[in-house]
Amino acid sequence: MPACSDGNATGQPTEVVSDHEAKRLAIIEGAADVFGRRGFAAGTTKEIAAEVGLSQPTIYHYVGSKHGMLREIALHVDTEMTAALARGLARSANPVEQLRAVIEEFTDAVVRDRQAFAVYWQEIRSLDDDVRKKLSDDERAFVAAVAKLVALLQDERRLPDGPAVVVAEAILSMPSWMYHWYRPQGPLSAAQIAQLYCRLIGLDPV
Amino acid sequence: MPACSDGNATGQPTEVVSDHEAKRLAIIEGAADVFGRRGFAAGTTKEIAAEVGLSQPTIYHYVGSKHGMLREIALHVDTEMTAALARGLARSANPVEQLRAVIEEFTDAVVRDRQAFAVYWQEIRSLDDDVRKKLSDDERAFVAAVAKLVALLQDERRLPDGPAVVVAEAILSMPSWMYHWYRPQGPLSAAQIAQLYCRLIGLDPV
Repeated sequence: MPACSDGNATGQPTEVVSDHEAKRLAIIEGAADVFGRRGFAAGTTKEIAAEVGLSQPTIYHYVGSKHGMLREIALHVDTEMTAALARGLARSANPVEQLRAVIEEFTDAVVRDRQAFAVYWQEIRSLDDDVRKKLSDDERAFVAAVAKLVALLQDERRLPDGPAVVVAEAILSMPSWMYHWYRPQGPLSAAQIAQLYCRLIGLDPV
Repeated sequence: MPACSDGNATGQPTEVVSDHEAKRLAIIEGAADVFGRRGFAAGTTKEIAAEVGLSQPTIYHYVGSKHGMLREIALHVDTEMTAALARGLARSANPVEQLRAVIEEFTDAVVRDRQAFAVYWQEIRSLDDDVRKKLSDDERAFVAAVAKLVALLQDERRLPDGPAVVVAEAILSMPSWMYHWYRPQGPLSAAQIAQLYCRLIGLDPV
């Protein structure tokens, strides 16, 4: 299965989501857009309401205060990261293909929700301790899972020696940092960029 | 010159700095620590004064308001990035060695001023338009200079095909993202991590 070259990341969940959940997700997306553009401190619920086309009380009903929205954005990013890892690992039993698939799924997730990822990484300090701890733990588990694949590929001489966690952080830097530089109008799709990452670290399709 | 394996980045400027400049830099560093720990919105000049061991009026005299401090932090990051690029390019005439040297110098700069880089990247939205534009222009020039090296190495088949700017962004992701994950108590030095980045993308010493 040529994980990095088939562009087969489905991205959006296929099950039907409820009206309530769809509205909640639209508000989270609108809030991420406003906070991404203006910063969390400067962005207002009024702007978010205008962005989503709903009243401020409706927004409040679905996701609570501005602080509650930040919390929802962070938890959304957490869910997307965890889901991207799970999808990537499930796509093969071969560690090379799994690592390629995780890179592809994670790249797709960051590009798809770029504003939410940007807001999360820029506003970590503004989150409540419990959410911060959950995301930090889950991020550590994500890196550890990738480090496990890295260690297997180091045994096969497919990746250079060195602490597997550091190699994993180096690899995950590429999709992560896209929140800073990627623009949708660029020359390559998310799938093509993920393929480029794989080739850059020598994980060409077999 | 084995740029990536000699651990020879001098890092600190060698010229003697004036007392005024040394104090200004200490305040910028203290402000970056406080904003990095607490966020720009929550951090206060009182905390910064306590961090640096100076009075609030003295701090104000050297760098102005809290907003002025953020501006100074961003301009410091800008200076350090530009200097790292210049040092890296100057270390050889061979593009492979130059790219290795830029990776090493930039990694060293991010590790040395990790809090300042973190504050800059997390608080871009809070900067005045003129500073934001200057940093954005300089960052684009940095990426373009690296893309020029990438294009030369693509001609030599030392790096994979694809838009040189995207390959440059992918490579620069690795030092950049360290602001998020790197901790000084980790197993590797900045120079060792830079060597690992070079090996990961196939730029082993010749």
